[in-house]
Amino acid sequence: MPRTSSPKRTPGKATAGASSRRTKRAISKETATKIEKLAESVLRSVQGGRNPFLDIPVRSLANVSWSERRRLIELGSQKQKRYFFNVSMAKKFMQSFLVSDACKELIDSGKTTSIRDLYYITKHTIGDTRQNTFEDQSESDPIIEDLEVTLDALREELHLFAARKGSMVGPVTITDTGDTIDLRRMGSGGWAVPSIVEENVITFRRHEAKYVLLIEKDAVWTRFNEDKFWKRNKCIIIQGGGQPPRGVRRLVQRMHRELKLPVYVLVDNDPWGFYIYSVMKQGSINLAYESMRMAVPDARFVGLSSFDKTAYQLPTNVAIKMEDRDNARARQMLAYPWFKKAHWQREIQEMVRSGLKFELEALSRRGISFITEEYLPRKLRDRDWLE
Amino acid sequence: MPRTSSPKRTPGKATAGASSRRTKRAISKETATKIEKLAESVLRSVQGGRNPFLDIPVRSLANVSWSERRRLIELGSQKQKRYFFNVSMAKKFMQSFLVSDACKELIDSGKTTSIRDLYYITKHTIGDTRQNTFEDQSESDPIIEDLEVTLDALREELHLFAARKGSMVGPVTITDTGDTIDLRRMGSGGWAVPSIVEENVITFRRHEAKYVLLIEKDAVWTRFNEDKFWKRNKCIIIQGGGQPPRGVRRLVQRMHRELKLPVYVLVDNDPWGFYIYSVMKQGSINLAYESMRMAVPDARFVGLSSFDKTAYQLPTNVAIKMEDRDNARARQMLAYPWFKKAHWQREIQEMVRSGLKFELEALSRRGISFITEEYLPRKLRDRDWLE
Repeated sequence: MPRTSSPKRTPGKATAGASSRRTKRAISKETATKIEKLAESVLRSVQGGRNPFLDIPVRSLANVSWSERRRLIELGSQKQKRYFFNVSMAKKFMQSFLVSDACKELIDSGKTTSIRDLYYITKHTIGDTRQNTFEDQSESDPIIEDLEVTLDALREELHLFAARKGSMVGPVTITDTGDTIDLRRMGSGGWAVPSIVEENVITFRRHEAKYVLLIEKDAVWTRFNEDKFWKRNKCIIIQGGGQPPRGVRRLVQRMHRELKLPVYVLVDNDPWGFYIYSVMKQGSINLAYESMRMAVPDARFVGLSSFDKTAYQLPTNVAIKMEDRDNARARQMLAYPWFKKAHWQREIQEMVRSGLKFELEALSRRGISFITEEYLPRKLRDRDWLE
Repeated sequence: MPRTSSPKRTPGKATAGASSRRTKRAISKETATKIEKLAESVLRSVQGGRNPFLDIPVRSLANVSWSERRRLIELGSQKQKRYFFNVSMAKKFMQSFLVSDACKELIDSGKTTSIRDLYYITKHTIGDTRQNTFEDQSESDPIIEDLEVTLDALREELHLFAARKGSMVGPVTITDTGDTIDLRRMGSGGWAVPSIVEENVITFRRHEAKYVLLIEKDAVWTRFNEDKFWKRNKCIIIQGGGQPPRGVRRLVQRMHRELKLPVYVLVDNDPWGFYIYSVMKQGSINLAYESMRMAVPDARFVGLSSFDKTAYQLPTNVAIKMEDRDNARARQMLAYPWFKKAHWQREIQEMVRSGLKFELEALSRRGISFITEEYLPRKLRDRDWLE
C-alpha cells in the first residue's frame, strides 16, 4: 500500500505559521487518521484474500542522499514491502501494528510517553507460548522509525518523546500547554526545553528577538545568560547540552521558519563541534527522513573557527592536541558533499594541519566575559561566519 | 594555619532560613573574607621567616566515616600540611593560590563560571620556562576541592558551577536572580534547575506544597507533569536526569529545611536506583565534605521496591536480569552501614535472590498512568516507604 503522503514534505506544509496554526485536536486527528488508513488498507488485503503488506521507505545509507537544491540530507524513494505471510517478516509485521495500535491509543487519550515506556506497554507474552512480542527496546525502536517514515509523521506526532536536555531564555513569550511563559524573566535557570515542541504544545507570542543563538555547551550558555547577552543583543539563547536533542533542534527550526529569525551556532573548534553544526544545518544520515522537520539549512557557524586562534590571540597552551580519532573524523568530514565549499575545506584542513583543537572555554583565557563582550559581537559585526 | 571554621557545620548555620536570609553581598563577602584570611596567614609566615603552609583536611577514604547520630557520610578531622618550601608540594601550593586568586576575582566581580573555565583562566606558562601552571583540568579540579574543605565553602560559594541537568514544577513561587517565577505555570518543559541555587540566587516565596518528590528519570517526571500529579497532590516534582547533579541535590535539601517539606525519592528497582537514593539521603563517599550541604537524612524511598513486583502484579516479562556487576554492586551495598537496617537488608537480598531488576517504566505495563494514579497514591496512603 502507498505511503499516506510524500516523503519529501514541502517546507510550507511543515511550517504552518501563526495564521494557519493547526490546533492540538487537528494535528492529533490527522495522525490518527493516517494510522486508521494504514490499518484499513491491510484489512482490505485480508478481505480480498491477498497477502497483506506494509510499504516501508528504506532507511539504510544506500537510500540517503544530499540534496544540493534543498541543502538537506534526505531520504530517497526506495521502499521495501513487509508481508504478513512471510516467516522472516511476520513478527515485524505484527510488531508494527502493536506499535501503531499503542500510538493510536496515546493519541486518542491525549497522552504522550517515552519510547522506553512504549516498549513496556507493547511487550507481552503471546498466548500460551514463551514468545514475547518484543525481547528488548532495540526491537521496538526501529519499528517506531519504520512507522514514522511509513506514516510520514514525526514520532512527536505519534505522541512519543525522546530524552531531552537543554534550556532557553530570550526576549520572547511562549505558551506551553496552555501556560503563558515570559522567557525574559526566567532567572539563571531558564525554561527547560521539552522533547515535544510541536505547534499543539508550544506556540510563540510576542517577541523582540533579532536572531537565535544555539550554544553547544551548557556552561557557555550560563555565561551568556549571566552576562544578559540576550538582553543587550536582543536574541534568544538556547543550549542542548552537547549534541542538541530533538526538542531543541525542532524548536530552533520553528523559530527560524515561523519567526523568520536567523540562526547562529556557537560550538567548540573540534570535529565534534563541526558535526553538531552540520546536524543543525542539514540533518543527520541516521535520521535523514527527519531533516525537513529538524534542519536549518541557513544556519550560520560563528566559531570557534580554526583561524580564531590567530584572530583572537589564543595562547598555544590553551589548545588541545588532536587525537587520532579526531584526525580520522576530520578527514571523513572533508569528503562530505556539504563541506565541499572552499571555506569549509580550508577550515577543516587548518585543524588537521595545526594538530590543535580549541574549546569555547579557551576564550576565557582572554577574560571571563571575553566571549560575550568581544568575541561574538565582533564576529557578528564583521559578518565573520561560515555557511 | 587553622581552617577558618569547623568542618562539621551545624545544620542551623547551613540552613539560614527566610528570617535570617543572607544577602548576595553578605555571602560573597563572607567567602571573600575567608580567602583573604588564608592569604594573610601565609603572608605572616613569610614575614616571620617561616615555611608557609596550608592546613588541608584529608579527603581520602580513610578520613571518611558514617555518623550514626547525624545519619550522614562525613569527613573526619585528619589534616595534612602543604608547604611552600617542599619540592613535591611547591607546585600544588602555587596552584592553590592561583585558584584562590581567581575565585576571589570572580566573587569581587559578581560573576560565576564553570570549573572548566577556571582551568583555562588559571592556566598559563610560567615566566620563560616551558612549565604550565596546570597541564589539564584533572590538576585543577582537586585543587578546587582542597580549597572547598580548607575554606569550608562550597564551590558554589566560590562562584564555581558544575554541569547541570534537571527540571522542576509545582505549587511554589521562587525568585531566581531577581526574576519571580511561578512554578505552577511552567508548561510541559518546567524550570531548568541551575547549578548554583544558594540563597543569593534562589529564594522561595509563596507555596502550597506538602512534599517534594524527586524522580530519577526525566521521562517519568514528564508523565507526572503531563498528568498534573503535582497539582492534584500539592507537591513539587523535580528530576535530575539520573544521578541528580549538585544543583538539584542542594535545592531539594533547601526545600526540606527551609520549607519543612518531607522528601520522597522515586527510583528504579536496581542497584543504581538504590545508590541515587543513598546519595540523596546521606551523601557520597567521594564528596563526604559536602554531605551537610547536600544530603537529606530524612528522605524516604517510595520505590520501586524489590517486593513491588508482587504487590503491584508486574509480569516477569517486564523484568530485566541482574548482571554480574549488578550483583557485585548489591553485595557492596549490603555491607554499607547505612543499609544495615533489617528492611534494607531484606530489600537488597530480595533483589539478589530473584536475580531481577525493574525500571519505573515497567509500571506502564499496568497502564500508562498507573504510576501517577495508582502506584504512588497507594504507596503514600499506606505509608509504604523505606527510610
